[in-house]
Amino acid sequence: MQPKPNIVDLPVYQPGKPIEEVKRELGLDEVIKLASNENPFGSSPKAADAIRREIEQISIYPDGAAVELTNAIAKRTGVGADQIIFGAGSDEIILMIARAYLQPGDETVMAVETFPQYKHNVTIENGVSIEVPLADGKHDLPAMLDKINEKTKIVWVCNPNNPTGTIVSDEELTAFLDQVPDRVLVVLDEAYCEYVEDPSYSDGLALLKRYPNLILLRTFSKIYGLASLRIGYGIGAPGLIRSINQVREPFNTSRFGQAAALASLNDDEFLERCRTANREGLAFLRGEFDRLGLDYFPAHGNFIMVDVKRPSLEVFDALLRKGVIIRAGQRGYPTRIRITVGSAEQNAKVAEALEAVLQEIGVQA
Amino acid sequence: MQPKPNIVDLPVYQPGKPIEEVKRELGLDEVIKLASNENPFGSSPKAADAIRREIEQISIYPDGAAVELTNAIAKRTGVGADQIIFGAGSDEIILMIARAYLQPGDETVMAVETFPQYKHNVTIENGVSIEVPLADGKHDLPAMLDKINEKTKIVWVCNPNNPTGTIVSDEELTAFLDQVPDRVLVVLDEAYCEYVEDPSYSDGLALLKRYPNLILLRTFSKIYGLASLRIGYGIGAPGLIRSINQVREPFNTSRFGQAAALASLNDDEFLERCRTANREGLAFLRGEFDRLGLDYFPAHGNFIMVDVKRPSLEVFDALLRKGVIIRAGQRGYPTRIRITVGSAEQNAKVAEALEAVLQEIGVQA
Repeated sequence: MQPKPNIVDLPVYQPGKPIEEVKRELGLDEVIKLASNENPFGSSPKAADAIRREIEQISIYPDGAAVELTNAIAKRTGVGADQIIFGAGSDEIILMIARAYLQPGDETVMAVETFPQYKHNVTIENGVSIEVPLADGKHDLPAMLDKINEKTKIVWVCNPNNPTGTIVSDEELTAFLDQVPDRVLVVLDEAYCEYVEDPSYSDGLALLKRYPNLILLRTFSKIYGLASLRIGYGIGAPGLIRSINQVREPFNTSRFGQAAALASLNDDEFLERCRTANREGLAFLRGEFDRLGLDYFPAHGNFIMVDVKRPSLEVFDALLRKGVIIRAGQRGYPTRIRITVGSAEQNAKVAEALEAVLQEIGVQA
Repeated sequence: MQPKPNIVDLPVYQPGKPIEEVKRELGLDEVIKLASNENPFGSSPKAADAIRREIEQISIYPDGAAVELTNAIAKRTGVGADQIIFGAGSDEIILMIARAYLQPGDETVMAVETFPQYKHNVTIENGVSIEVPLADGKHDLPAMLDKINEKTKIVWVCNPNNPTGTIVSDEELTAFLDQVPDRVLVVLDEAYCEYVEDPSYSDGLALLKRYPNLILLRTFSKIYGLASLRIGYGIGAPGLIRSINQVREPFNTSRFGQAAALASLNDDEFLERCRTANREGLAFLRGEFDRLGLDYFPAHGNFIMVDVKRPSLEVFDALLRKGVIIRAGQRGYPTRIRITVGSAEQNAKVAEALEAVLQEIGVQA
């Protein structure tokens, strides 16, 4: 039994250490995790209520087409119900796009570093990933445009970009989209869009009206705080959504995910509270990094990537021993770590721990 | 933007009508759904408790590797933790197997009629589905063996078979597995295995020890009554599981699905109660069909396929108007319907409704 040759070298996903395990192994009473860009304020209380109500229906399959949630998002965003598709997180939308569109040898263009699931899924489909280095942590859209050729099927743009947190402006994005051939699908991953307050940021929904080869990816895992439930969505032209729907598994999202998303979709008070706290948290962390003399990329999501001027994995280990889990080890950024913006208390703790760690390790030549 | 040519004719999944919609459209007070082989007795009360406890963690990603649940299933089944993989229902295990193993042009052998997701996923991977007719509603394993050739990568065996409910015996399956070449993966879908009481039925776990090219598919959607949560699993040799794991999305099952599955896994009292009620329900339905002079396939799961001697879609519509939703329209069985075994009350209602419908429609030449 031989698997496809193109998957044999794919890394098996290695899960992060659970908080409980870190506590036990390191003998710590308190551990905070600022590694997965989760919402430190949880989720809308309406989501929890919806889950409690849904328990009665635990044995009943979900509505595979998620009709109620589709209609609610259509209403909120002003698009047609036939322009929306759901996945078990936007991860699964990426999977479905790759599965529906890529044939062996097809090319796709993406940034490096960016969200790893683009390349992962392209590799599984035996497609080719053309990786274009970021410029100062930002998508280099002109360089990406240069890589588009007759074989190109998909371009992936993560905005804000994970892990760097940077955005491309509406002007940059529009200039890019104007030149991408119609036959090339542009995936605009907006997982963190609800956090962005910069006025130069695009209105993805407005772009959709002008570029039918565009699909937006959004998620309930980030500002909505429903990461545990695995629910995200794509918005695009009806024909595009129909093709993706053809490869969708009949019951790909759960009843609880749908119900919680529906209940929290329009809780704008919760969203505004999270956005405000995130803004304050980013300002605090920037101030601390300035004080410590550390460079960082302009951060527009709920995380920030900072240059610690030491091997990132060493800093990771040292922070772990102080009870703070962050993300490190990006191949392109050997001295940068990514920190999720937490609560004010968590932000203070990570800043204090980082300062101590930087003193312990010292700058290496 | 052209999707892969092999998916353009794939049907978009059409969801069944929700009970509420049927009530409203037909002006009915009570509608029962015996169409999706859900558990009429819900799920273990331990599952609901687990969900309530998990609400605190709603914003936190699930453990992608489902370590606790893996260890619990390893303990219950006596296999190694490296022999287990989870999916959003066993549907997703089918998807992952197809994605990991099939290249364009590869052949897979399956029965017709059987669970449609095998063919659906093979088509998406641009593989070839060799469909072997059932014999008296049962997998024709010798005929399937004849179709295995150099191009064959996978053979799919659904036991009990959906939609017919029949099983192949351990003797038949062993004779088959003895002759399948080692390089061909055999997927043994045991979604309904916990219902089977026939002594000739295989112990899939025992087969695994003798056939390293075998993978078992199991689910929490059926007797465990967790269909809403989308969680199923595969058990196979470590190398096989590792390859499938390479194409798994990092967070493919939800925190709630894992918690509910873990809580209910060993609730043998609940399982026994469901098995007993199912046995009684099947006996009742068989008695009613005998009385009405209707043939049916030997049923081993929580559903039964009966020949109503009338166009199945007409019977479906007539039953719907009486408030009973069943499954009809199998291309190979134009006069058969599939009925899920419900509660005693539901079974009485479907039998009564069917008797009335048969009188209304009359046998057509």
